[in-house]
Amino acid sequence: MIFTDIQKGFMQKAIDLSIENVANGGGPFGAVIVLNDKVVGTGVNRVTALNDPTAHAEVSAIRAACRALGTFSLADCEIYTSCEPCPMCLSAIYWSGIRKIYYCNTKTEAAAIDFDDDFIYQELAKPATARTVEAIPMEELHDDALKAFRAWELNPAKTAY
Amino acid sequence: MIFTDIQKGFMQKAIDLSIENVANGGGPFGAVIVLNDKVVGTGVNRVTALNDPTAHAEVSAIRAACRALGTFSLADCEIYTSCEPCPMCLSAIYWSGIRKIYYCNTKTEAAAIDFDDDFIYQELAKPATARTVEAIPMEELHDDALKAFRAWELNPAKTAY
Repeated sequence: MIFTDIQKGFMQKAIDLSIENVANGGGPFGAVIVLNDKVVGTGVNRVTALNDPTAHAEVSAIRAACRALGTFSLADCEIYTSCEPCPMCLSAIYWSGIRKIYYCNTKTEAAAIDFDDDFIYQELAKPATARTVEAIPMEELHDDALKAFRAWELNPAKTAY
Repeated sequence: MIFTDIQKGFMQKAIDLSIENVANGGGPFGAVIVLNDKVVGTGVNRVTALNDPTAHAEVSAIRAACRALGTFSLADCEIYTSCEPCPMCLSAIYWSGIRKIYYCNTKTEAAAIDFDDDFIYQELAKPATARTVEAIPMEELHDDALKAFRAWELNPAKTAY
């Protein structure tokens, strides 16, 4: 595939962020979100710096872009990320509405430096009962829990997404 | 399975949060993180209120618990969530180190009120090239991107996780 200089510039920005972040004590990941050929949010991996296991580059960039644009939908945006997203970040991309991802490093290369996204991909593809993280249904309180779903359905003021 | 009153109390708290959150204009989801029989973090779905597509109950609870405990690892914690986690939240649970999830409502019930986690689970299980969100490798900049991984490997001050 042939990329424009503008596209290469966005990826270069994501890469520069990833390299700077290592110098700043963070993980080697950077991401840039683009709307109409303009950067609207950037992110780097700040898991250990912020004590936030969800502060991956893509999640951070999504939060920054949403904050900047005042919306929870990035349906018209694209993301440039220095590395193929982990399942958390890919799911966040789905929830955000982004439909196109550009990436360089692969999840296999990430696993080789001990960021083992691939393990989580494999776990998610298993049935819940076969995963290493145990998920235990509490049937006894299920009827109570469903009350929130019924309240949501009946709420005329809800903002669906 | 038989649950203790303490365990049922934690789930009741998650359910109460989910019901309150609907009254406050949020999604019908609540979560509680527990360490040594004490609540160390709670969360509700504030996606639309905060313009943050990642602000699901479990992700929010993980962030809160990590903030409260001053750590990025919740390896000794358990999570009580009113609904089975979506792939983003389940991945966040993996990254956080939590090894046990208690839940009530199922992802099928969530899909029935238009929170379609199940679609994302199906997408993640597909090869990247078969997903509806397109992922495009930019080979031309791959060598540059790998520099961040090499810098990480060589950084003696890095905090691995």
